[in-house]
Parts: sequence; C-alpha cells; structure tokens
Amino acid sequence: MTDEANSPSEEVEVFSPFTDSRTAIREFGEIALIESIREVLGENSPASPEGIGDDCAVWTPPPGERVLLTTDPVIFGKHFSENDAPEYVGGKLLKRNLSDIAAMGGNPGPALLSLPMGPDVCHDWLRQFVYGLSMACEQFGVPLSGGDVAAGAPGTFVATLTQTGSSAHPITREGAQIHSPIYVTGALGGSLRGKHLHFLPRLAEGQWLAQQDNLCSMIDVSDGLAKDLLQLIPHGAQANLELDNIPLDQNAETIEQAFCDGEDYELLFTLAPGAELQGWPFATPCQKIGHIRNTRGQGTLIDIASGKPLEFYHPGYEHFQG
Amino acid sequence: MTDEANSPSEEVEVFSPFTDSRTAIREFGEIALIESIREVLGENSPASPEGIGDDCAVWTPPPGERVLLTTDPVIFGKHFSENDAPEYVGGKLLKRNLSDIAAMGGNPGPALLSLPMGPDVCHDWLRQFVYGLSMACEQFGVPLSGGDVAAGAPGTFVATLTQTGSSAHPITREGAQIHSPIYVTGALGGSLRGKHLHFLPRLAEGQWLAQQDNLCSMIDVSDGLAKDLLQLIPHGAQANLELDNIPLDQNAETIEQAFCDGEDYELLFTLAPGAELQGWPFATPCQKIGHIRNTRGQGTLIDIASGKPLEFYHPGYEHFQG
Repeated sequence: MTDEANSPSEEVEVFSPFTDSRTAIREFGEIALIESIREVLGENSPASPEGIGDDCAVWTPPPGERVLLTTDPVIFGKHFSENDAPEYVGGKLLKRNLSDIAAMGGNPGPALLSLPMGPDVCHDWLRQFVYGLSMACEQFGVPLSGGDVAAGAPGTFVATLTQTGSSAHPITREGAQIHSPIYVTGALGGSLRGKHLHFLPRLAEGQWLAQQDNLCSMIDVSDGLAKDLLQLIPHGAQANLELDNIPLDQNAETIEQAFCDGEDYELLFTLAPGAELQGWPFATPCQKIGHIRNTRGQGTLIDIASGKPLEFYHPGYEHFQG
Repeated sequence: MTDEANSPSEEVEVFSPFTDSRTAIREFGEIALIESIREVLGENSPASPEGIGDDCAVWTPPPGERVLLTTDPVIFGKHFSENDAPEYVGGKLLKRNLSDIAAMGGNPGPALLSLPMGPDVCHDWLRQFVYGLSMACEQFGVPLSGGDVAAGAPGTFVATLTQTGSSAHPITREGAQIHSPIYVTGALGGSLRGKHLHFLPRLAEGQWLAQQDNLCSMIDVSDGLAKDLLQLIPHGAQANLELDNIPLDQNAETIEQAFCDGEDYELLFTLAPGAELQGWPFATPCQKIGHIRNTRGQGTLIDIASGKPLEFYHPGYEHFQG
C-alpha cells in the first residue's frame, strides 16, 4: 500500500458541521441518533457485547500479549475546519490514534468513540464523518465497538477516540544509547497542506520494526521532529543530526517546517549503538538522520555540519498557546 | 462502605471553570500542563509505560479474563455547572464510568483521560477537578494511565474518560426470561439534588452478582428506570412492576421521578425464572420490583396493581432534546 492509495481520489462534499439549512441532530432522540450512526458503520460495528449496545464492549486480546491503550480527539476549530470534508476528518480521528499503536509496534484492537457535540451539528455532516471513520476502520481492520453520544455546547464538535491494541513486546520511547543511530520513515513538514488528513499510520512498519532485535526505542512524529525527538534522547545525551538527510515532504519548503510543523505521523526510532537498518521491506522510505551521542552541553539537537545547536522559533506544536 | 462515606464531609470551594480573575491554562505549555496534572495525580498515575508518558499505556489484564471497555464524558453545561465543586465533578467522571464496569460484573483496570478544553479554563479549577478524579482513583483502585490534553473552544470543558475492566464472565443486558424477577439496588429518583455527584458505583455488588448462578442480565440505571429497564426485556415480553416496591430516594417526591430522572447509577438485574435473591451480603439495599412476563400487547411496562401500562410524560433522559 502506498501513500497515494489513501489520497483523495474522488470529489467529496465540503460543508459546515453546523449549517442550519440541513437537519440538525437535535431532531433525533439519542436512540435514533445511535441507530443512524450504527447504520453507517455497518459491519465495522460488531454486535454486542463485542460491539455497541451493552454497558461495556467486551474484547479478548490475543493470549499472552499485553494491551495498549491510547486516546486522541479531533476538535472543530483545532484539528479541522469547515473547509475539511467530514469523511476525511472521520478517517483522521482513527488514523491519528492508530499512529500511536504503530509507535509501540502494536496490532490494533477495537476502538471506542465518544461524541460530545452541539445540538446544532448537521446530521448529514455527522453521517459523512462516521462514514469516513467507518472506511478507515475497514481499511485497518478495527472494530468500532462502543462509545457515547452527548450534547455539548452549540457550535462545538469534539470526537474522542480510544484505540486499543496488543503486542507481545511493546516498544517504548526509552532505550536509546550513546551511538544509537536515529531513523525516520516517510517525509516531514507541510502536513497542513493535506497530509494531516491523508496520512497512513505506519502500522505494518511499526510491527516489523518491533521484531528487529536491534530496535531500541520508537515514537510517532505528531508534534514535530524538534519536539518528539527530545523524547528519545537519554538524560545527558544529545542528537547529532545530518540536516541534508532529513526527508523533506514535497509540501514543505524549509527544513524548519520539517522540524516544527507536526502532524507528520511518521515513525522515529533508534537502533542499538552502531547498528544499521537492514532488510527494510516497505515502499515507505526510511532514512537515517543522525545519532545519539554524549552531550557536550551546547544543546540537545545539534547540526553535525556546523557543530552548532539547532534553534527554532517555534519548537514543535504547543496546544494551548498556538 | 456506606453511601454516607462518599458524601461531602467538608466545605469545598465552588467557582467557575472559566473565571478570569485566576490564571488560565493558556499560560501553560502542554508539557507544563501535563506535569501539573501528574503532580496532582501523584501515585494514582503510574510510571510509563504502564502510565502517562509514552505513545500508549501498557496494561496486562488478569490471565484468562476478557477485557471490558467503556467511555463517558462530563461536559460543562450538561453534566455539571459552575455551581458544582470541581473535585466532585472529577470524581463523578470516574464513577459514572465505573458504574458501567459494575454493570458487567467487572473489576476495574486502568483509565485514560481526554481533556479537550478552552484556553480560558482556570488552572486552579482544573487542578481541583483532577484532585477529585485522583481521590476517586485511589478509592476504587484505578490507575490513571494515560490521556491527552487539547485546546477546545473558549468556554468549553469536555472531559472524556475511558475505563477498562476485566471479567472472566461478563454479564450482559441480554438473558432475562419469562418469569425472571427484576431487582434494583439502592433508591431511585431526585439525583440532581446531589446524588449525581455523590453516588458510589456498585462495583462490589456487581462482582458478587456476577458470581451467582441464577443471574440472567444486568444494566446500570443511568438514563432512568423507564428507559433502562426496556433494555432488559426480551422481545415479545413485558415487565410487570410492583410500584409500591420501587425504592424512592429521599430526594424524590414522586414515583415518576424514580422512573425518569436518571443518573441513579444503581444496578438493575434479572434472575432465572422463579428464582429469589439469597445471601445478599451488602449494606446497600436491594429490592425486587417486578418480573418479566409474556406481553399482552398493552405496553412494555405494566403496573401490576391496576393492570395498566405505565406512561410517562418524559420517558427517561434524552440527550439532544432536553
């Protein structure tokens, strides 16, 4: 599967989540609304108790594996606007959570959807949002197993998804050592031009990496390389980076965008000291961008070519100050 | 533990989540905000990867048990107001999710917290909210293992919790048969006078019931008896109710309140046909309120005394039309 497989291939309708020329969800009772959502989900919503319809959803993880849990929302005005097609927004909600499962090397389990939203949300918009979510569930084999609808403030739409997963040996952010090489999948920067909606979570890549003996640590790049890479650097160490090797997305114009834009949803990982990535079986590019070394006290991210610390005006995405 | 144990025993401070005379969370970066939340959580937030700090939280459910998953929010203006103490709101968020785990007869696992909120949320209010959540985590042995903070629209506060649990044999809503007796714990109605914040999820009661051979089906009463009881009645059946036996909360004045108010968070369950509940070991009251029988086509909820169907002006809580 290539990135192009997930790009928009047909015209999709774009309209406001709160248009008042269409039927709003306040016209529906809770039960009718849930029924409408389940109808769109179809076979991607299993029967209860494995799916929607009981007090809890019931799941049997693969025997001997540990359970992974993550949660992330999409919020109107923050993660999408009225210029984004609702079905892409629905797909994004699942995929950004799956990117966290990928970063642990996990296999996805069922998902839960919580939908606090204004009574003025357009029913058509909601159905197309759920349709996009449902198509992504199908693409990645995720059962939508439960959730909740609740009335929020008018003009608001907050969809929170909780994604489960499983792994025999989850890969954490800790474990890089001095001389560990640093790699990143895909390309970085410029995600707001479309990739933030149309990326593919690197599930297969993460699962393959988790099986390599020399993998040390892994994270997904969601807040930007400049911020997320810090999570992989051990105390008293720094990352020496080869800026020429940092893969720039075709929608990014400057190296600063690759470091600071965020929403790349690529995998960033380290290997054992001195190791090299071998036998990478995917079409997705994977690039060595530097290595971990003992700090010389000049900063944490260092440009190898100049020997100077990297400094950015905007060091990765800040949620409440943007 | 009695109900009184969870009632407010000290004066707590009540103030608006959005007061602008105090420091707002927009003054904090995401990392500082999460650190502030973790500080309040203390030992109720385990170290990563079991707790906050990696791409996913990792959990090992008890071997041989199935995993339970549920999610419910508390929303400003819907589930609480500026007249409710933030620490009680935080406790409510956990407890309403634990009530769903109780309704399956499960044992709670870790919880995830998603916090979409306006940049104008008061930092003190948030800390007291998290403090209440943390105290409830401690009370019920729930590790707060992960989550997300994200900027929502100004003036909004939506906290969504996902609660995991486990059970060797989860109890579903299906299974009642003709002549199954119907029971309910505690007392119903008038919850808005305080119980909606100060209830105790019936975890121990649910776990004990799940071990009884003659338990057929169970649900928690969150939308009101009139609505939730319908979930336990098999197709082609009705519930014959002894209205005098329906336990009325001291804050409820009419039987209609017991049927329609909602937010009781009591357990409603059925036993095998003709069975009686024996050996109930709890201080919590538990009352037989009727039984399932073949429908005579007059309605689904029947007053045994009059033989007539029960009709309510407001048949249980409707989320988008209230």
